[in-house]
Amino acid sequence: MSAPLDLRGDVVKLLHALIDVESVSGNETQIADLVEQSLQPFGQLTVLRDGNVVVARTELGRSERVVIAGHLDTVPIAGNLPSWTTHDSAGKEIIWGRGACDMKGGVAVQLSAAAALVHPRRDVTWVFYDNEEVEEFRNGLGRIAREHPEYLEASFAVLCEPTNARIEGGCQGTMLLTVELTGVAAHSARAWMGHNAIHDAGPVLQRLSSHQSQQIEVDGLIYREGLNAVRISGGIVGNVIPDRCVIDVNYRFAPDKSPAEAKDYVRQVLDGYPVRILDVAAGARPGLDQPAAAEFLRAVGGQATAKLGWTDVARFSAMGIPAVNFGPGDPTKAHADDEFCPADDVVACRDALIRWLSGPSG
Amino acid sequence: MSAPLDLRGDVVKLLHALIDVESVSGNETQIADLVEQSLQPFGQLTVLRDGNVVVARTELGRSERVVIAGHLDTVPIAGNLPSWTTHDSAGKEIIWGRGACDMKGGVAVQLSAAAALVHPRRDVTWVFYDNEEVEEFRNGLGRIAREHPEYLEASFAVLCEPTNARIEGGCQGTMLLTVELTGVAAHSARAWMGHNAIHDAGPVLQRLSSHQSQQIEVDGLIYREGLNAVRISGGIVGNVIPDRCVIDVNYRFAPDKSPAEAKDYVRQVLDGYPVRILDVAAGARPGLDQPAAAEFLRAVGGQATAKLGWTDVARFSAMGIPAVNFGPGDPTKAHADDEFCPADDVVACRDALIRWLSGPSG
Repeated sequence: MSAPLDLRGDVVKLLHALIDVESVSGNETQIADLVEQSLQPFGQLTVLRDGNVVVARTELGRSERVVIAGHLDTVPIAGNLPSWTTHDSAGKEIIWGRGACDMKGGVAVQLSAAAALVHPRRDVTWVFYDNEEVEEFRNGLGRIAREHPEYLEASFAVLCEPTNARIEGGCQGTMLLTVELTGVAAHSARAWMGHNAIHDAGPVLQRLSSHQSQQIEVDGLIYREGLNAVRISGGIVGNVIPDRCVIDVNYRFAPDKSPAEAKDYVRQVLDGYPVRILDVAAGARPGLDQPAAAEFLRAVGGQATAKLGWTDVARFSAMGIPAVNFGPGDPTKAHADDEFCPADDVVACRDALIRWLSGPSG
Repeated sequence: MSAPLDLRGDVVKLLHALIDVESVSGNETQIADLVEQSLQPFGQLTVLRDGNVVVARTELGRSERVVIAGHLDTVPIAGNLPSWTTHDSAGKEIIWGRGACDMKGGVAVQLSAAAALVHPRRDVTWVFYDNEEVEEFRNGLGRIAREHPEYLEASFAVLCEPTNARIEGGCQGTMLLTVELTGVAAHSARAWMGHNAIHDAGPVLQRLSSHQSQQIEVDGLIYREGLNAVRISGGIVGNVIPDRCVIDVNYRFAPDKSPAEAKDYVRQVLDGYPVRILDVAAGARPGLDQPAAAEFLRAVGGQATAKLGWTDVARFSAMGIPAVNFGPGDPTKAHADDEFCPADDVVACRDALIRWLSGPSG
């Protein structure tokens, strides 16, 4: 067991310490132990442990409660542990290493703010969960939502995934579908005796390529959709006319559409082709018209934008809780081997959360 | 060691015996031993052995020599050994089992005719070789052509691959090329930051699909070309805009074109796309204007047609020896799990070879 983390000290040192505890999905016990034991000394928090999920709650009897959540796991390491530091051309400190961006920066923000907020004006539920980077059914937040939904009760939620320290509202839905083209195999020296399924993929790809994706405003934010072939495969050997070609298509849809509406839309775009929906995950509306959200926006400053990738905010949305993404680091560096996080982002996010939740109680 | 084959007996029984000696490529020693020992008693033949190639030659001092060749190996068995017999609706005998069609039917024809032709009017070189069904560099006929070209010296060659007992002249060339499309990867929620390589495959496939393949007359036979995508692959995971898509294309070209001309043709059809030639094998002109070929045509009767698939006749053509395909069985059943050969085809082919090579010596 490592020494407990110093949650009252430098939040950037805290980030280094968190990165250096390897916690690839499925191997979160050590970091969950550390988070649990580091939070226990703080009298304002009731700390619960369930598997490798740690929940720390203030129980101040406030009229409102918010959830602030982040995942403890990372994608596999890629020669990028332990963490290290560089400085950019402006002399700004940059922290490198697996999880720096996705999302131990956010976890450091949560832990530092949880320790600092002794008298928040709203009750806060801090959630640290496992298995976000792997199959849906293993997701720790999903498990808690099913087994202990009372842990997550709140009027508003913040997910500390990387957003460059800006508020990104809601998230787009995502769908995976497949177009399977069927032909007739034949020896390629007698092609006219068969029917080439790969050739039939041409018009499907042309239709996807020429499709103009929509830009849709929801609760004041603009969501930019996308409809793309993401995989294609067909054919077996060089002397056979292929009798099968499969195109996997990903559709990212704005949160004004339900999964059913998104399916209808795709079937209309690909009318005439054999579309099969493999998987669909609902989006989440940004809910920036909620009072807690509006106050959060004011505390953070700047302009909220739409979250385009799917995130676990959709789990809160499904429970009727409006949710936003807000965390340090550039989301395009998530999962990258050269993943990093600017120290300034970590400090800015921690300070914004404290600013929002401090002051006169609600 | 099995008992020698009865080459003077029923050619259909001989075919059964040959099928029942499993000889998947790389495992031809037993069948090569059997062929060698079964030919040795025939005084008209000088039998040579080189690896698993058996060569049996008449040395009658004729002014002309022909080669009649066939391979001993088969593709892997598929629950289709030992051989069995059925009768079709017309009461005709059908022999089933791995190699029945490709090409132990042809080997039975060769062995039966070699035993019967004591005084052929042309000298005959009977060639039985290994590893035809596998990688080019292992091909037994290719090895003999490189190491002992004198074994193959002749003015005309017959390859006993299945042709439904009709003469199929020459063969088409075959080329494998690849079109590799390159894009820029991006998260599929921000597709406009990348460039979709799979979408770029659409116009390539459309061009292949709309291409009108040529029909070309060579030495009186019509060759029907073909240009087909045979494999496609692109993309890795469902949330990334694919940065690579590879289309493998097979071009079957008439033997009026050299490999260099065939390359030029393909580059012209796919002008504007990044074409890379992976492999090309020259075709073979049918050479039916040669005297030996003309006599062979008369002896067999019927109409010669163009061979569309690539066969080892091209090896003879490369040595300046015109060559035709002629053997029992339906070529479209080669490699099929329900491979079979009509008994009548085996008898007809054996009788045609004997008719052609008997009589007044040349």
